[in-house]
Amino acid sequence: MPELRRDPVVGRWVIISKERSKRPKDLIVEISEDNRSGYHDCDFCQNRQDYKEIVSIRDVSVKDKFYVMATPRKNHLLCIEGDVNRRGKGLYDVMEGIGAHELVIETPEHILNMADLALEQIDKVFSVFMMRIKELSQDERLKYVMIYKNYTPDLSKNTILHSRSNIMAMPVNPKRVKEKLIGAKAYYGYHERCVFCDIIRQEKEMQVRVADENDDFIALSSFAGRFPFEMLILPKEHNADFHRCLPEKFRSLSAILKSVLQRLKLGLNDPAYSMVLFSAPFRRGHLRKPTSTLDLDFHWHIEIMPQLTRTAGFEWGSGFYINPMPPEDAAKFLKNIEVKL
Amino acid sequence: MPELRRDPVVGRWVIISKERSKRPKDLIVEISEDNRSGYHDCDFCQNRQDYKEIVSIRDVSVKDKFYVMATPRKNHLLCIEGDVNRRGKGLYDVMEGIGAHELVIETPEHILNMADLALEQIDKVFSVFMMRIKELSQDERLKYVMIYKNYTPDLSKNTILHSRSNIMAMPVNPKRVKEKLIGAKAYYGYHERCVFCDIIRQEKEMQVRVADENDDFIALSSFAGRFPFEMLILPKEHNADFHRCLPEKFRSLSAILKSVLQRLKLGLNDPAYSMVLFSAPFRRGHLRKPTSTLDLDFHWHIEIMPQLTRTAGFEWGSGFYINPMPPEDAAKFLKNIEVKL
Repeated sequence: MPELRRDPVVGRWVIISKERSKRPKDLIVEISEDNRSGYHDCDFCQNRQDYKEIVSIRDVSVKDKFYVMATPRKNHLLCIEGDVNRRGKGLYDVMEGIGAHELVIETPEHILNMADLALEQIDKVFSVFMMRIKELSQDERLKYVMIYKNYTPDLSKNTILHSRSNIMAMPVNPKRVKEKLIGAKAYYGYHERCVFCDIIRQEKEMQVRVADENDDFIALSSFAGRFPFEMLILPKEHNADFHRCLPEKFRSLSAILKSVLQRLKLGLNDPAYSMVLFSAPFRRGHLRKPTSTLDLDFHWHIEIMPQLTRTAGFEWGSGFYINPMPPEDAAKFLKNIEVKL
Repeated sequence: MPELRRDPVVGRWVIISKERSKRPKDLIVEISEDNRSGYHDCDFCQNRQDYKEIVSIRDVSVKDKFYVMATPRKNHLLCIEGDVNRRGKGLYDVMEGIGAHELVIETPEHILNMADLALEQIDKVFSVFMMRIKELSQDERLKYVMIYKNYTPDLSKNTILHSRSNIMAMPVNPKRVKEKLIGAKAYYGYHERCVFCDIIRQEKEMQVRVADENDDFIALSSFAGRFPFEMLILPKEHNADFHRCLPEKFRSLSAILKSVLQRLKLGLNDPAYSMVLFSAPFRRGHLRKPTSTLDLDFHWHIEIMPQLTRTAGFEWGSGFYINPMPPEDAAKFLKNIEVKL
């Protein structure tokens, strides 16, 4: 059973994964030439039948034909069975690593970058995200569902390259989610307005960091982005929860996401990127009290972080990031790229 | 003039560096074979005379013979001249990138890893750190001096490999420093004890995460370390400020640091690592008020983070790190490595 541990100073939770623990020599990075150029058979194409299905969107007329499927991660970091059992160890805080860790296989074809999926396929990916969030939110032990994706075009990384996302359901609110909640709440407390709604209003007015927009969504270079070309996608209408987004908005969501991913791909030579979906935590327990303003002060959104620079000790140590690309220049560059959806 | 910008939600400060801004195609990573194996002449050995001296420790009997020297960084991210000029831009916060950005050349010889410096040389490095912190703390515009180091043995990274540290003096307290201060203060508020002193007490008792100790310092695997083999060095005696550490303690500080760095080098095949020194911010202005407990609740320390795993979207997005190496196993492994100081 993996353990969750909390740093007693900062309050950051960490998974201490005993099952996955490695011997020190396994961690030593030795990149061989074979490793760089080697072709790894795609498990999601070749051995699909070995993956257990949690939920899927299928074409009923064709046997085994799925569009999108959620499956438990084979090397999951969190276990779905057991009690959270939060407790002290002297001054330290510990709890069991309860939660869910799933993969969403985003396409039956061997497509690597989500940027290259058809819009109707991306719609279905969002449908599966929503189904999983709704289901997992029923589990009283879980506080948050993080949906994220790491894309890399680099064969040497030795990972599955088939387009996929990760779902991690956790018994704690992750630190950065908490920080966002606290910041948004403080802003709301002073202004009685949602900070994200204000950002949208100001960005639409200034028109210097908007990379794309449609009727329902806007894509921005973050004003204080940590990484070059860090992008933010926001629904224009206030809504704290992704899972309350209306399915009829999925097409414009897919369109703005594909537009941003295509711009990054075409403009920056298919860079590796990470994507994280931020939504409000489930309102239950102490959060259900009538004073909770979560519905009013939080606003769901997607962050996309291309991996163009290396983050080193200074950024990790200080939480003070160095971004060599002014967000205004990034937005201008991306806006001018021609994309076909 | 670079700008500092604050994320309106999380409160994280970022340098938007216009001077250093690159065209998008400059950011595209294309690693060629030449790049991997190429030899770059060491500027700190060949062109030392071109570096302006801020302060140095020298052998007066030998012309141009220095032991350790602080010099302004040529591509500095912060400027020492001007006003901070903190202001709003609509809902966003902005200030000028005022501060100092310096390099400490740690040895006249072409030694790459600080682990390989003689103890008396490391003593002198700490002396130079102390001189710079004391000097920079006189500048009323500056709030914090971050001392950090990024070591890599990899020629392809295209950086200077000569052993060196960075000094960054900033007009804001970096986010992670703030988090540590807030956490330590909250703990002190409840227990009326320093959380770091309590950590030392508990770790000495449990003896499962101690990698090394001497009369004055202790080296631990952090209980909730984010990275495999993340190490923490603490002075045993309570002290909030590195610059108040007595120079007669430098030898035991150098000894524990060299011991940890040698263990990492020998045990993990000379990995890249980052090192950050955390000390209390300067007590001035609003911090000088009599209610400040900073002297009591904070405790200076050094964090060392070997770079063995890749941090990707999930960790950045969530602040929820995955560490595949239990800190107890890391401490045991490092403890058993034989080192010569």
